[in-house]
Amino acid sequence: MPASYKISFVGAGNVAWNLAPAFENAGIKVEEIYSRNKDHAQNLTHRLYDAIALDCPDFSSSKSDVIVIAVPDDYISEVVAQLQVPDHSIVVHTSGTAPLEVLDGIKQFGVMYPLQTFSKSKAVQLDNVPFFLEGSDEQVYELIEILVSAVSKHIYRASSADRLSLHVAAVFACNFTNHLYGISDNILKQANLPFDVLKPLIAETMEKAFLLSPAEAQTGPAVRKDVKTLEKHLSYLSGQPALKDLYKILTKRLLRKE
Amino acid sequence: MPASYKISFVGAGNVAWNLAPAFENAGIKVEEIYSRNKDHAQNLTHRLYDAIALDCPDFSSSKSDVIVIAVPDDYISEVVAQLQVPDHSIVVHTSGTAPLEVLDGIKQFGVMYPLQTFSKSKAVQLDNVPFFLEGSDEQVYELIEILVSAVSKHIYRASSADRLSLHVAAVFACNFTNHLYGISDNILKQANLPFDVLKPLIAETMEKAFLLSPAEAQTGPAVRKDVKTLEKHLSYLSGQPALKDLYKILTKRLLRKE
Repeated sequence: MPASYKISFVGAGNVAWNLAPAFENAGIKVEEIYSRNKDHAQNLTHRLYDAIALDCPDFSSSKSDVIVIAVPDDYISEVVAQLQVPDHSIVVHTSGTAPLEVLDGIKQFGVMYPLQTFSKSKAVQLDNVPFFLEGSDEQVYELIEILVSAVSKHIYRASSADRLSLHVAAVFACNFTNHLYGISDNILKQANLPFDVLKPLIAETMEKAFLLSPAEAQTGPAVRKDVKTLEKHLSYLSGQPALKDLYKILTKRLLRKE
Repeated sequence: MPASYKISFVGAGNVAWNLAPAFENAGIKVEEIYSRNKDHAQNLTHRLYDAIALDCPDFSSSKSDVIVIAVPDDYISEVVAQLQVPDHSIVVHTSGTAPLEVLDGIKQFGVMYPLQTFSKSKAVQLDNVPFFLEGSDEQVYELIEILVSAVSKHIYRASSADRLSLHVAAVFACNFTNHLYGISDNILKQANLPFDVLKPLIAETMEKAFLLSPAEAQTGPAVRKDVKTLEKHLSYLSGQPALKDLYKILTKRLLRKE
């Protein structure tokens, strides 16, 4: 890995917050950060060696090999319309759902989608994170691959269709799963019980699904057809009709399985 | 821990399959196993030193200090009606949802509820599993506590009401969460992608929820109000209306959060 590669970011949210320092730790210098909110960009530059925060998305004098658009999907097109980049820079986005073509019109472009959940308040071990890459041509793909291989050992070539499948699956396995943890947390809070007592169960649920498969690992009153228990749980939730409905819907899905 | 304690089981399902050998490894001899399906009881005795499989739930000549009813909640009352036990034996059930009183009529009784998911195909590290105990009187409670402390370091006194809260929370955090993993697995299978690529995301989701809290750890298109992405995901799921509805319901809950 020559130390001379350079990278820049549009966006200073959870993704850029985690990726930018990781690239810099791997020897890829971060040049510029642009965010609609300049304070956010400046906060991110404080985590970096000597990156600068731009006032507008004008990267025309940037030395970056790759400019990473890490903004919510809804804003990618808007960013692309305003973006000024030199021909030598490859522009990539990090979205699971936006197709490669959203960057059409730029000379060299691609995708680097990290299949992970990022927050500012918790650092992620990036080297285990799978990255799904796409490039507007083979040479572009290869340069993106060189850069990403500096931060992760798990690199896959994936079409925009594949990425969409991955992102939908990730929403169920991560965002919705975390929401279920939150529901459990609330139920225990209402009963003055600590969330901590659920941790061994949550960890075992994950480990068992990994070892067997989620289908083989399924347990609980619904798969046991334990009707009295299901009724008691529904009656327990009767004061929270939306939660009771969610319990019913998920239980119905499990009752249909054998 | 005197080595002279003895235990027996009614039921040879996932719970007894994991608890009986753990008690025996901890020096508490397993005396008898009864299951409606004698083959199941015999299969479990094969994992034990010299436990015997009973033909009917007649423990009247048992030397057991504790007889554990580990059957689906729907069958506990039926088992209790048939059960014959000597006065010196404490009868406990292992249910999260059944109240203590379901054992009323027996001389000494209680509850030992392990907050964990058990399967025959994966051994569980029992010493980290929280057990929630209840006893028909203090002396009974203390004996149950002595026995359970041989297999777990995490023992709590909990009322039947507390256990119900714990069980409902556990259904969300374990059974329903595992079902979401299964949905993700199916989505990836349909796209010929391996479930393995989701594992770092699933592990990070759990670790982040533990480190922060589920509410603080929440990410994803819904909390970002990333409407285009949500629409693309719903359109991706349009061939699977039940799944699309579930996506909508969970997304609506997340959109309401700030």
